[in-house]
Amino acid sequence: MAATPPRRRADAERNIEGILAAARDLFSRGLNPSMIEIAQAAGIGRVTLYSHFPSREVLLEAVIERAMTETDEALTGLRLEEASPPDALARLVRTSWSVLDRHRRLHSVAVTVLGPEGLRRQHDRAFQHVDRLIARGQADGAFRGDLPRRWLVTTCYALIHAAADEVEEGQLAAADVPEVLTATLLSSLTRT
Amino acid sequence: MAATPPRRRADAERNIEGILAAARDLFSRGLNPSMIEIAQAAGIGRVTLYSHFPSREVLLEAVIERAMTETDEALTGLRLEEASPPDALARLVRTSWSVLDRHRRLHSVAVTVLGPEGLRRQHDRAFQHVDRLIARGQADGAFRGDLPRRWLVTTCYALIHAAADEVEEGQLAAADVPEVLTATLLSSLTRT
Repeated sequence: MAATPPRRRADAERNIEGILAAARDLFSRGLNPSMIEIAQAAGIGRVTLYSHFPSREVLLEAVIERAMTETDEALTGLRLEEASPPDALARLVRTSWSVLDRHRRLHSVAVTVLGPEGLRRQHDRAFQHVDRLIARGQADGAFRGDLPRRWLVTTCYALIHAAADEVEEGQLAAADVPEVLTATLLSSLTRT
Repeated sequence: MAATPPRRRADAERNIEGILAAARDLFSRGLNPSMIEIAQAAGIGRVTLYSHFPSREVLLEAVIERAMTETDEALTGLRLEEASPPDALARLVRTSWSVLDRHRRLHSVAVTVLGPEGLRRQHDRAFQHVDRLIARGQADGAFRGDLPRRWLVTTCYALIHAAADEVEEGQLAAADVPEVLTATLLSSLTRT
């Protein structure tokens, strides 16, 4: 394979960044844009767009992957391992919610395009933080041991997304979600 | 409007019953059948099928509506109002789960065709039982009053469907669901 000249490689990287930023912006505004609209917003031609992303689905996956990487970094920055499991859960909920709330519409599109399983795979990296926290809480007795860890992680996953749907339908105020979710999850994770 | 002769009306009703039964059977086996396949399974012609159900989506909605009516009747038969809120919750979970487990694949198709909101509307009638139970539990202090009733109903809704997804993915045994769900929901509905 011939090496790509540095200048062309830098152009390509700039284009990819521009495409991902434009696509994320459009999807996050709930617009469900066509490839042509994304190319226009990124200020590039359709041929260039398709050379990097052969389909809307591939592009959407890349947008979601980028968002998940940022979420992963934000959650790593919380140093959850230094807090008690209940405090760590409250922090984790607050940060995860602020990310999900910003991407709520992107999330709705993603459910439709990737299906529930595809989406869960995309979320796996972020939910490893939840998994580690629940493992630690179960080990030190802060969280219940009578239910499988995987199910408790699923409970967190299901309820944060249920909260996003409720906000979308105007049934819950976005600002109330961290408190409501933390209260619900702390109870779920503790044996009555 | 001319009155339909009784004989023709009886034929039409028999056809509708046959179509709904055949469609439910095919959808419940996860087959995502075409209209032609449904007509064949019901032993009627395509024209007759379309005269009753103009589209696959309309037919699927009718199948789901029928299943929800049966669920509603089953839940009414439980006489939940005669048990304490925690006992009533355990009964309600057991019966709802057995219905959902039987219709798991129908449910997966329904998510795709109706979307999450359309599906939730279809479930509303069954979830009125949950709503009434939570209202009673909040009033008599058995369930928490620090979170809105609507959110607690949503929690039940989200977790029973999360359990169905886990079973579908082989992460949870169907037989374990009633116990796991009841334990999780009782904690969620109780203040820690």
